[in-house]
Amino acid sequence: MTVMQGFPPAEADRATLANWRTRPYSAWAFHHVREIVPSAPIANAPGDVWRLEQGAPLLSDELLGDILAPTCTDALVVLHQGRVVHEVYRNGMGAEDPHILMSVSKSMLGLLAGILADKGLLDLTAEITDYIPELAATAYAGATVRQALDMRVGVEFCEDYTATTGPIIAYRKAANWNVVEPGDTVPDLRGFQQTLTAHDGPHGGRFHYVSPVTDLLAWVIERAAGRRYADLMSEHLWRPMGAEQPAYITVDRIGGPRAAGGMCVTARDLARVGQLICRGGARADGRQVIPARWLDDITTQGDHEAWATGDFAERFPDYDMVYRSKWYIHRGAKPLIHGMGIHGQFVFADPARDLVVAWMASEADPTSDGAFGLRYRLIEQLRAAV
Amino acid sequence: MTVMQGFPPAEADRATLANWRTRPYSAWAFHHVREIVPSAPIANAPGDVWRLEQGAPLLSDELLGDILAPTCTDALVVLHQGRVVHEVYRNGMGAEDPHILMSVSKSMLGLLAGILADKGLLDLTAEITDYIPELAATAYAGATVRQALDMRVGVEFCEDYTATTGPIIAYRKAANWNVVEPGDTVPDLRGFQQTLTAHDGPHGGRFHYVSPVTDLLAWVIERAAGRRYADLMSEHLWRPMGAEQPAYITVDRIGGPRAAGGMCVTARDLARVGQLICRGGARADGRQVIPARWLDDITTQGDHEAWATGDFAERFPDYDMVYRSKWYIHRGAKPLIHGMGIHGQFVFADPARDLVVAWMASEADPTSDGAFGLRYRLIEQLRAAV
Repeated sequence: MTVMQGFPPAEADRATLANWRTRPYSAWAFHHVREIVPSAPIANAPGDVWRLEQGAPLLSDELLGDILAPTCTDALVVLHQGRVVHEVYRNGMGAEDPHILMSVSKSMLGLLAGILADKGLLDLTAEITDYIPELAATAYAGATVRQALDMRVGVEFCEDYTATTGPIIAYRKAANWNVVEPGDTVPDLRGFQQTLTAHDGPHGGRFHYVSPVTDLLAWVIERAAGRRYADLMSEHLWRPMGAEQPAYITVDRIGGPRAAGGMCVTARDLARVGQLICRGGARADGRQVIPARWLDDITTQGDHEAWATGDFAERFPDYDMVYRSKWYIHRGAKPLIHGMGIHGQFVFADPARDLVVAWMASEADPTSDGAFGLRYRLIEQLRAAV
Repeated sequence: MTVMQGFPPAEADRATLANWRTRPYSAWAFHHVREIVPSAPIANAPGDVWRLEQGAPLLSDELLGDILAPTCTDALVVLHQGRVVHEVYRNGMGAEDPHILMSVSKSMLGLLAGILADKGLLDLTAEITDYIPELAATAYAGATVRQALDMRVGVEFCEDYTATTGPIIAYRKAANWNVVEPGDTVPDLRGFQQTLTAHDGPHGGRFHYVSPVTDLLAWVIERAAGRRYADLMSEHLWRPMGAEQPAYITVDRIGGPRAAGGMCVTARDLARVGQLICRGGARADGRQVIPARWLDDITTQGDHEAWATGDFAERFPDYDMVYRSKWYIHRGAKPLIHGMGIHGQFVFADPARDLVVAWMASEADPTSDGAFGLRYRLIEQLRAAV
């Protein structure tokens, strides 16, 4: 790869705001996001890092090797019984480099929301407009925080990642993720919410995947707790968890966090999050980080009907799936809990097997079915191997 | 202060790319630069932090208190005999927050250059165009790396910080520091160097303060060492020094570092740099970070004639001053070595007294004589107190 090699890089090798989510630039840009988009730090506690021990590999290097290139893998960390059993970095990424999570960022918000609710700082039964009355004239009127957490808000938005015009482009410009063209009048992320005035169903109905709903929740959380989102994420999750590295989140032109997709973390820290899910929210030394009952709720309280009638049902025909508090759950005797982001970001937690997979990639296709199949096959091989 | 308070902040309270270097926004923005300008991380080594002990205060709280507001101080850390004897944070800044150094960034480059030269990775006697032949048609032709380190390159550039048009604005747009207006065609920082084609004196003559010359040296260093500037700064200074926090540097639209002014570090880490200067380049445990002979060279080899005929001679009439390798030296039996940046960034090292002052501010005036006088008076009081 020659992207961003040379001083200066040749024009064709430059990762920029105009190309950073496309190949081959994304294989560099996804672990250098802060060089392209402004960002707010999510501090860790360097003196209190949760150390991860090494364990024996579960799968052959050959099997793993076969899957890394076709899935455009940048990083893969597998934990079993709390030990690192596989750890791979590619495309110039290293163990210390934060990589963008895309929509796994939403899952991080889902954990923060649970922590804040448990501490009495966030009311899940409140309506969005109780916290943000200035959205009274939008399609959010009448929707609750809980419905937003479960992606069951009936707000119209075309979540077409390949669109080149329309609201998703306006949304990305508002987020600082796309180039603003001369003559564009661009709102900030919070201003963008004002443009979502059309309903496309009742609140509390089907699973309906609308990314801006998660940015909205970040706004709700900031209002509820009276502090900035990145600082809350640091204080309530990143420091208590014992993250090895600071994380960060991209921000818009007035410091607003892109909570739906802009969080960047190391693969090992993403694996630590998965490990918390496996262990009922507690660190290896027993310190509780995420309330156990919040994880129970995620694992058991997803609505099957909402999923079956929702946006992604056709995409996962073979799975008994639900969505709860920004997490996907394959239900069953041994549920698989996971976060999922476009271009190949994943964290999988299988609590019954104490198995965690943190996976970061830079696939060309935002939602490649081929890579998806390969990835799920590896997960099933790992689950079978333990 | 209400800057960046509220969700979202009121329009008048927003720090943005259009206002971030002006009061009152700068008092927030100078320790949140990465939220406004893209940045590259300068990693520290979290497992090898140089711990700083606490010591007894040298000056009264009243005396210190009187000076903080009129100097728009954001952070002040004073070390004596390697111990922290004063430590102050204001305007919402904390001990973990990197603050922009402005031209003290140049002094950091001066240390990195010495380390790399000592390791045989950079030839100070080479000409700029030996490393960067594509600048053969600019005013840099014939200038050496040493001359660029000492700001003795005869290149014409109007370093007027209050100008609203002209090359300094083009330079800031190239650096990502100013808003690019519709219709602007903006080069990157390295491309900007191509525009500096006019001479205004011989190379190797007077002290001539031209910020882009330091960005040019970052480019030379990248070419010479074959790696990116932020990574070199991390490997050769920030990790070996035992910095407590990662630093970072702002980058242009193609990842080029703004080495002349865009480095952001914590006040304690800036104090550690000063402590290295006091101790001949070594950490408290004796590990050598900066070559002792490089610091000797800085302390003793500045050219008085160059200073006396140079750009700043009238500004410091009472001091026997020289400039060497991006550092200012008040000469004498007990020399004072310092870095200095606009809007109030300073690090002072007095090796004979083992005294270090790291000072960060957000003054409205880039070069306020009033604040300058107050600051130097405190330095003299501290020097007299030990």
